[in-house]
Amino acid sequence: MNAKPHFLPHDPIQLDSFTFEPFPRSKKVYITGSRPDVRVPMREITQSPTPLANGSVENNPPITVYDTSGAYTDPDVKIDVRHGLAAIREAWINDRNDTEILSQISSHYGQQRLIDSRLDAVRFPQHRLPRRAQSGQNVTQLHYARRGIITPEMEFVAIRENQRYQDIDNNPLLTQQHPGHAFGIRTPRVITPEFVREEIARGRAIIPANINHPELEPVIIGRHFLVKINANIGNSPTTSSIGEEIEKMTWAIRWGGDTVMDLSTGKHIHETREWIIRNSPVPIGTVPIYQALEKVEGKAEDLTWEIFRDTLIEQAEQGVDYFTIHAGVRLAHIPLTAKRMTGIVSRGGSIMAKWCLAHHQENFLYTHFADICEIMKAYDVSFSLGDGLRPGSLADANDAAQFAELETLGELTQIAWQHDVQVMIEGPGHVPMHLIQENMDKQLACCAEAPFYTLGPLVTDIAAGYDHFASGIGAAMIGWYGCAMLCYVTPKEHLGLPNKHDVREGIVTYKIAAHAADLAKGHPGAQYRDNAMSKARFEFRWEDQFSLSLDPLRAREFHDETLPQASAKTA
Amino acid sequence: MNAKPHFLPHDPIQLDSFTFEPFPRSKKVYITGSRPDVRVPMREITQSPTPLANGSVENNPPITVYDTSGAYTDPDVKIDVRHGLAAIREAWINDRNDTEILSQISSHYGQQRLIDSRLDAVRFPQHRLPRRAQSGQNVTQLHYARRGIITPEMEFVAIRENQRYQDIDNNPLLTQQHPGHAFGIRTPRVITPEFVREEIARGRAIIPANINHPELEPVIIGRHFLVKINANIGNSPTTSSIGEEIEKMTWAIRWGGDTVMDLSTGKHIHETREWIIRNSPVPIGTVPIYQALEKVEGKAEDLTWEIFRDTLIEQAEQGVDYFTIHAGVRLAHIPLTAKRMTGIVSRGGSIMAKWCLAHHQENFLYTHFADICEIMKAYDVSFSLGDGLRPGSLADANDAAQFAELETLGELTQIAWQHDVQVMIEGPGHVPMHLIQENMDKQLACCAEAPFYTLGPLVTDIAAGYDHFASGIGAAMIGWYGCAMLCYVTPKEHLGLPNKHDVREGIVTYKIAAHAADLAKGHPGAQYRDNAMSKARFEFRWEDQFSLSLDPLRAREFHDETLPQASAKTA
Repeated sequence: MNAKPHFLPHDPIQLDSFTFEPFPRSKKVYITGSRPDVRVPMREITQSPTPLANGSVENNPPITVYDTSGAYTDPDVKIDVRHGLAAIREAWINDRNDTEILSQISSHYGQQRLIDSRLDAVRFPQHRLPRRAQSGQNVTQLHYARRGIITPEMEFVAIRENQRYQDIDNNPLLTQQHPGHAFGIRTPRVITPEFVREEIARGRAIIPANINHPELEPVIIGRHFLVKINANIGNSPTTSSIGEEIEKMTWAIRWGGDTVMDLSTGKHIHETREWIIRNSPVPIGTVPIYQALEKVEGKAEDLTWEIFRDTLIEQAEQGVDYFTIHAGVRLAHIPLTAKRMTGIVSRGGSIMAKWCLAHHQENFLYTHFADICEIMKAYDVSFSLGDGLRPGSLADANDAAQFAELETLGELTQIAWQHDVQVMIEGPGHVPMHLIQENMDKQLACCAEAPFYTLGPLVTDIAAGYDHFASGIGAAMIGWYGCAMLCYVTPKEHLGLPNKHDVREGIVTYKIAAHAADLAKGHPGAQYRDNAMSKARFEFRWEDQFSLSLDPLRAREFHDETLPQASAKTA
Repeated sequence: MNAKPHFLPHDPIQLDSFTFEPFPRSKKVYITGSRPDVRVPMREITQSPTPLANGSVENNPPITVYDTSGAYTDPDVKIDVRHGLAAIREAWINDRNDTEILSQISSHYGQQRLIDSRLDAVRFPQHRLPRRAQSGQNVTQLHYARRGIITPEMEFVAIRENQRYQDIDNNPLLTQQHPGHAFGIRTPRVITPEFVREEIARGRAIIPANINHPELEPVIIGRHFLVKINANIGNSPTTSSIGEEIEKMTWAIRWGGDTVMDLSTGKHIHETREWIIRNSPVPIGTVPIYQALEKVEGKAEDLTWEIFRDTLIEQAEQGVDYFTIHAGVRLAHIPLTAKRMTGIVSRGGSIMAKWCLAHHQENFLYTHFADICEIMKAYDVSFSLGDGLRPGSLADANDAAQFAELETLGELTQIAWQHDVQVMIEGPGHVPMHLIQENMDKQLACCAEAPFYTLGPLVTDIAAGYDHFASGIGAAMIGWYGCAMLCYVTPKEHLGLPNKHDVREGIVTYKIAAHAADLAKGHPGAQYRDNAMSKARFEFRWEDQFSLSLDPLRAREFHDETLPQASAKTA
């Protein structure tokens, strides 16, 4: 068990001690790669033996599962949020010898924040200097992959994707699996580092891994790999402290979030982000235009390329792993939204549309796209090309505005790839079930198979309070069709800001959707945990059913409501 | 508002007064058919006007929606559960002049219960005599349909299915809808009584409507109509009183349950059922083998045709609208389950398998199937042909045992149809997404398009505590592919018995799935409520967003957690 963690002195919210407890009957294991500092974390679930009729027992093997929770669930690691996580990637980055530690923060805004003594109380206590590519160097995983280099990050994700399931290859009951229907893709039974490299080189997968986020445990996003999920967190001007946001991040990864987007718009965005990145083992994404807008006091028409550029550099040097950039909202697309039921619902999309209309000029994110690429490749920030014109209602699904933007995102993908910058593409939104596959097919065609990353989609508009589920249906389906990452939706969507409970509901719902997609694709190894669960169910091994569930605590709690006595757990 | 209802004197559980309150901004309306006593209930939701920039307002039309909640939400009706609901179908049945009121209950068991004075305290206070077809008559809706007769039940469901949405035909914004993908079926824009008759005559739809359930508001189940959902309730030997079961039934229909299955296995099954049917405006289904098993003290091998037959008659004379009958579990199929991951998980299926193996004889439900049909047609009880060999895990999905049974159910469908008995077919269970459509296609082919009625299916096995959602994904998809009714799963599935909260979660989840299926099929009118909701959302009409949601109370509650002040509801 961890020692009691330190808390933020100015912000006396305690990280829930529960966050630091391993799941029941689970232990953290590490698989070591070709160098000793490639240590890939997994969660090993112990199973009980099955009593046999003859009085002996059948042993059931431990089940190893993907583990997003980082060092927080490792009892051997002392967590101190004021210090941050260990910089496990630092040696990998140093060894490449293509970066330099800067003598100071490059962004004007970051410099100002640093010297403002009023911020001392909320600042992350460890001052670190940013790292940047040496002049003329390109430090993206895509750049390495295209040059035939297998990075430790690539080896890490290869080991991670395999989930050690080859260990139970000798158990036909557990390894049985339905051939899937994967819409033409073929994932090898064993993921090799070379396969990872090839997929990245082709632009079909990305490893968002900023060189300024050495605490990262790398994760791969691409449709030949396990379907991933993202959790959004972030404060607003009226709610949440830094402590609460860190807690939401650790809570999100505990339940299975593969990446976290910090969508803060409230006070201390810069400082909050530093705390989150330094304590996050998962990639952090942001929407830089949100912070840029704060810098011009909410007036979209006052935005400039210079303010935005400074914001990109500020965030890149903190270690943000991917940026949502709404460069596809072109001036000419905006009239296509005029007759929509719900206009432009993307916040980033409406900011840029407002700017374009105010100046009657092309979107500066579009005109400066090559400049943005130059920044991205100096830190290896991945693009998440935003869908600013995504439909906000079923009525607007798959319309001209949405698809015009998608085509532009395809053009931008090619430009990013010319710079060896990693790209994924954001998608809708609100789409009835029968129109979901068209979204996937068009995205693959327009964007040359760059990974797709969708919000849901919601399959009906009338499920307020249950939109995690209404969108989870669409998420499962588009994951099956080939979407690489699913952005979760919480029960509070459209109604209010999610609390911790909502984050858990959203995450577990989306883990179900992502896993259902892996099963339908016939992803290698996807079914063994289901098989172990089914065997435990058939044998009434209740404790094993709990621990094999996506949410072991919920499963136990519900069981015990009806049958609390211990005898009811071994039948 | 209703007067405070009477409660069961022996059973002082109060029906939650909330159950009797109409939803916010909603009122019960009745559409009258060709005869004054065909009064079809609907719920009309009032909308606020939209303030316009010029200071005037745009009026938004009321939105009429399907209403399963019965007289409980009609403030003009006085509810007294000790008296039961009004017998709205009585005149329809009398007018057909093909039934007779019996002088006493026909079943031996029913007679015994009636004279047992120890049961006086739990008995439904009103003694009613059962009705049966006159000798030589067949009183099923299928029989009438095939003879070209449009019954009041058929007219009722035709009006009900249209949901009065033609009233807003002049509103292009609200009536816009994506063309669906309905896998070859074509539902007319206006459902006529003649269309209903044709679909029933072809066996593609059923109206479960026992002549002993005159309190019923008829509902149609078939894939050319709105997708329906069923809620299971029922006590067990250790839990729940009669009052609680009535409360669960009223709660289920409040949230949108189209039919309710009473799966009670505890004390006073017979008496509980009487209370439920007399107070239920929706069709009630049962699994008679459960009660038959209680009569032989749980020993499956002691079951006999005679005991089962008496149980069928007992329940038919109480008014059960459909029976799950596991006649497809044939002796020859049982060895096909030997190598399964999870054997036979259907309770009815395992009872019959046990009986077959104990006697090494063919399932008596199969051998006596024509005898069963004779009973069904004398009361118009519909078959729900049970899937006793459904898979209990992904590993067992779509296997030889499952499909062998499905083929048998197809044979039995033909026999039932020879007797003009209405039939629907039960389906799985646990199926990964990519194997769901095969279930639907095979069912249509084997069972000559008889309506399909599935439990989920669950698309993963590892979602314990969230199986309402894991199954809701499969339910939405199979509903799209053509499944006519979805049997809900609650969050307690596999873990314990659902309480009221779980019933609500299960129902609303399944309403979302069913509605998503209607949208994907392009069912006429399916999108207008979504459109109204989206317009309200775009115009920040919060009160309208709440009242147009499937669960208005949850939507408001979540909104008010963040923004409780009234001003936040009109922006």
